[in-house]
Amino acid sequence: MTTWFYDGEPIDALSIDDRAIHYGDGLFETIAIRSGEPRLWQLHIERLRHGCERLAIAMPAEKSLRADLHRAIHESGIDADYALAKIIVTAGSGPRGYKRAKSGQSRVLTAIYDLQRPSQASYREGVVVVKCATSLGGQAALAGIKTLNRLEQVLARNEWQDPDVFDGLMCDTAGRLICGTMSNVFVVHDQSISTPDLGRCGVAGVMRRHVLDTLQSDGMSVREEDMQWQDAMSADEVFLTNSQFGVMPVRQCGEQQWSVGPVTRALMKRIANSGIAECAS
Amino acid sequence: MTTWFYDGEPIDALSIDDRAIHYGDGLFETIAIRSGEPRLWQLHIERLRHGCERLAIAMPAEKSLRADLHRAIHESGIDADYALAKIIVTAGSGPRGYKRAKSGQSRVLTAIYDLQRPSQASYREGVVVVKCATSLGGQAALAGIKTLNRLEQVLARNEWQDPDVFDGLMCDTAGRLICGTMSNVFVVHDQSISTPDLGRCGVAGVMRRHVLDTLQSDGMSVREEDMQWQDAMSADEVFLTNSQFGVMPVRQCGEQQWSVGPVTRALMKRIANSGIAECAS
Repeated sequence: MTTWFYDGEPIDALSIDDRAIHYGDGLFETIAIRSGEPRLWQLHIERLRHGCERLAIAMPAEKSLRADLHRAIHESGIDADYALAKIIVTAGSGPRGYKRAKSGQSRVLTAIYDLQRPSQASYREGVVVVKCATSLGGQAALAGIKTLNRLEQVLARNEWQDPDVFDGLMCDTAGRLICGTMSNVFVVHDQSISTPDLGRCGVAGVMRRHVLDTLQSDGMSVREEDMQWQDAMSADEVFLTNSQFGVMPVRQCGEQQWSVGPVTRALMKRIANSGIAECAS
Repeated sequence: MTTWFYDGEPIDALSIDDRAIHYGDGLFETIAIRSGEPRLWQLHIERLRHGCERLAIAMPAEKSLRADLHRAIHESGIDADYALAKIIVTAGSGPRGYKRAKSGQSRVLTAIYDLQRPSQASYREGVVVVKCATSLGGQAALAGIKTLNRLEQVLARNEWQDPDVFDGLMCDTAGRLICGTMSNVFVVHDQSISTPDLGRCGVAGVMRRHVLDTLQSDGMSVREEDMQWQDAMSADEVFLTNSQFGVMPVRQCGEQQWSVGPVTRALMKRIANSGIAECAS
């Protein structure tokens, strides 16, 4: 079992009155650790802060989160050259009932996991995805942030067992493409890049943010917009993003097939140059 | 802190790799304990079984759930004449990621809580509720069951601090009345009783089920139907149901006021006779 750290000490269990257990009352981040350092740290902190504001959970001090992370890296014994950190921020302990105690303090849990690199072939040839039957319910209050309420993703991820399927794409209840169970999705139509709007549901990934910021700083426009499933499937190119693997081309979804196109190739090179080394594959 | 029991032993913490912590991957029941016995046990078991089926979590044996409950009652030291039991069934421990381990076993946690009786005045005069700004997202896959993904209720419950407000009513994103944060709601128009349909969202409470079953066995029809907020507010009578308090009249929501009407009164008497003693107040 992976070792978790709380308040600097290794723990193997969470206080039974923690609101994460009872209500999923909290948030998490999964952060790429590369050469011993967290990647895109500021973007993770921004999303976490945004999530804490939305849920009215006290945001832990960044310095303390970072210190916890480095202590966990140091003490975990995991090779931090290429690893994954998971930080959970819960609404803390409290009495029974949905109402939070006024004095409630958030609780930070940190763990380091071994991580397998995706194959070179995946980046070169693209991956296979499926369409999930489980849809995402529209809930603007929770859209975009990475809460501990993840049953929709659990149901979706458990729809397939085939290890060759890289991820499953999810639509909202109106049939709009939103995101993968553990990734965001971008499509290219006539050289023009777009990605689903996440105002109603979906998780706004940190790598999605990094790709949007990078393209914008290069003077390229990317539309965040509503996207019907069929429109997405008719795209020239499709790719996924995620904090661990960076940018990953999609070569197949159901009957639909794509080759890894020039826009995706160029973007992968650009993102590799921005520090996401995997994309250079 | 309330004592929890797992596998017959008191515990104060939950294994850190339990999926309840990471994804809210589980279900719960809050059961009225009266004179040392669980009330409406079969209805709780039915809902839990239904929830387990929907989430593909292994349903624990009823006999074992009941044995756990009685052991917890015995060992908790709580006066079981009038108490509350909470049973949590999680998807158990597993590795990181939304995908469940094939060998995954559910985990049952049980606790007994002290419980305060609602005041006699509440039953006689009715309670005050508010309308919550937080809405319920439509998600048929999770509708009706009592999962550990409860952030919508957490946000809604934390909208008010006034201790005189008994509960908050929640609508779906289309403005249909669905339920309270911790109760179900019924309205009476021209002697006719109806309650919101819970096919898209909301928790189908065990006391709601008991009221529906009781009325049906008496040959009375109750409609489960979509209900716009304004239609509900124009009702002649409004009442709430919940496994602990039974049936509770509502006397005020915002500007709208009601007296405790004859249909609610008759129902409270009927439900009291069916074994929910509180309603005789």
